[in-house]
Amino acid sequence: MGYERDNIKTMDGYVSGEQPESDDIIKLNTNENPYPPAPEIQKIIAGFHSESLRRYPPPTADRFRDIAASLHGVRRNNLIATRGGDELLRLLVTTYVDPGQPIGMTDPTYSLNPVLARIQNCPVVKISLDPDWSLPDDFAKQINDSGCKLTFLVNPHAPSGKLLDSPSLGAIADELDGVLLIDEAYIDFVSDQYDSIPLIFEHDNLVILRTLSKGYSLAGLRFGYGIGHESLIKPMLEKTRDSYNLDLFSQQIAEAAISNHDQAMANCRKIIAERNRLGNLLIDSGFEIEPSQSNFLLATLPVARQASSANSAEELYLQLKSRRILVRYFPEKRLRNKLRITVGTAQQNDMLVRAIESLL
Amino acid sequence: MGYERDNIKTMDGYVSGEQPESDDIIKLNTNENPYPPAPEIQKIIAGFHSESLRRYPPPTADRFRDIAASLHGVRRNNLIATRGGDELLRLLVTTYVDPGQPIGMTDPTYSLNPVLARIQNCPVVKISLDPDWSLPDDFAKQINDSGCKLTFLVNPHAPSGKLLDSPSLGAIADELDGVLLIDEAYIDFVSDQYDSIPLIFEHDNLVILRTLSKGYSLAGLRFGYGIGHESLIKPMLEKTRDSYNLDLFSQQIAEAAISNHDQAMANCRKIIAERNRLGNLLIDSGFEIEPSQSNFLLATLPVARQASSANSAEELYLQLKSRRILVRYFPEKRLRNKLRITVGTAQQNDMLVRAIESLL
Repeated sequence: MGYERDNIKTMDGYVSGEQPESDDIIKLNTNENPYPPAPEIQKIIAGFHSESLRRYPPPTADRFRDIAASLHGVRRNNLIATRGGDELLRLLVTTYVDPGQPIGMTDPTYSLNPVLARIQNCPVVKISLDPDWSLPDDFAKQINDSGCKLTFLVNPHAPSGKLLDSPSLGAIADELDGVLLIDEAYIDFVSDQYDSIPLIFEHDNLVILRTLSKGYSLAGLRFGYGIGHESLIKPMLEKTRDSYNLDLFSQQIAEAAISNHDQAMANCRKIIAERNRLGNLLIDSGFEIEPSQSNFLLATLPVARQASSANSAEELYLQLKSRRILVRYFPEKRLRNKLRITVGTAQQNDMLVRAIESLL
Repeated sequence: MGYERDNIKTMDGYVSGEQPESDDIIKLNTNENPYPPAPEIQKIIAGFHSESLRRYPPPTADRFRDIAASLHGVRRNNLIATRGGDELLRLLVTTYVDPGQPIGMTDPTYSLNPVLARIQNCPVVKISLDPDWSLPDDFAKQINDSGCKLTFLVNPHAPSGKLLDSPSLGAIADELDGVLLIDEAYIDFVSDQYDSIPLIFEHDNLVILRTLSKGYSLAGLRFGYGIGHESLIKPMLEKTRDSYNLDLFSQQIAEAAISNHDQAMANCRKIIAERNRLGNLLIDSGFEIEPSQSNFLLATLPVARQASSANSAEELYLQLKSRRILVRYFPEKRLRNKLRITVGTAQQNDMLVRAIESLL
């Protein structure tokens, strides 16, 4: 017999992109940053003493919170540090949604979001994006009509890379009856004018997610944070968060990373330039490319290639994999003729394009 | 207005022991190990490259799981690695208890356990321990009669340090209708004969919690694990655990720590010897000391001191704190005339005893 709850028994777990351990793979499947973290971080590691691990770490990572709050022009109490952005998403569900209450999100979206809803035994309200990946005009109304207590928006959107502007987000927060999470995992690759943080002072139902995984080249660290109205941050910080959720080492690395924000942003600018170059190369090869404000491109296969097979994108994904190049294929209906390709270094991107051209 | 769920609004969060950052405090309040972690760990730190943090970490910490499984004579699938023991406790609630279903525990117990139940909106069934801190004979029957889906036992018990033997645990697992978690955070300080791990092969409802925080001197690392029947481990591993719950650095440190198990156990033997010495010194000072199989002592104040004030234990805690010695005081009814004292180094213990003697 199984002891687990019925909703756990019947649900599927989150499936992450492949994480091969070998280094001789061109890994363009999980939106990691191809450039190393800031040099200062190696100095922190060199000065780190194992003896300091003997004691419990600072429970709420206040030193990190102060540095990040200063960077963003908010106060410490507007900020919670979490074990990656994923912990923040979970805490929002745990804190703000009773089992049985619906959670809103776009379709498609970050595939972890519906999994978190299932774990809490909450129905998912999926609002289909328009053909150009923008939100339907009545998005907030549909969400409210469904009774959602929490809504997840990924901005820039994944997997399309489309950015929603800040005034539109404010209007949605204004209209929504429940809490709005804006997942800004890819914010550091936005090249348009965009700043959503002032919205937290105008809306008491809005939390912004940030992570060090992408822009700061620290996916292996598992460090993220949330910024929002103090009344939204406080219950997660003081009640629902695991006590000591962040180990001492990752707190110190995160402090160094965010203190060297400029170095990370210099890498991000290189990625933005490569994103534009890679996009053009793929367009030259016959792909349709969504304009992206992120560190990945959603590439629709050339029409001729689509016509040749019902599973053409999956086939191309597998062919690239056999050549030791990993990209991401999603079997969802709307994504079946597309691949999501992380922007790598110029050399990696060139190798990808050459491999694709030889396969088309 | 507040957006949080009613159960979150009305609950109190977990209150951890004080974690001062300064080093000139004798810290005997949160059961940290006074000895440094194994020397091998500093070598891992010295060889750690920040570049390796660029990618996502191994999602399920399989290398650690293999080493730990081998140490304990179980299989990889019997083991889940978690962000401290606390994450495992939370995952058990999330996976095995619907909101509204009761969770069983002893009174007193680890003060996080009722907090986790409240977060899941589950009633808590508290079974009072006998005057000598042993379980009442009808413990499992009371739990079953209350309809508990999950029961937490801390063994050796905190804060008394009393150990329940393995056959008794097996009998309880046998009788319980729901899942039993045996929290063995303090196992490495047990001097009696004790081995509960074979029980997982006989009982499909039993999970054993282990942590590197105490015996391995790694409280700052946040690393623990659960051992149990594969059918109990699997849903937590594949469904309810946060994806990438463990960063790369802590996985590598944990692998080194558990590979150098013998060095940690040598430190634990020193702590056991000091526990006995400190206990005798406190008895000489008029305290009543519970026989402890852990790295702390539950010390009942001398009767004369108790008579002098209703808050005598809290007063002594505050007096010691003013002398820069931290011990733990719990305001619960049954613990109000007691202090929980972590066993420190011989020098720390002597300083504590001298301070206490001057205050009595």
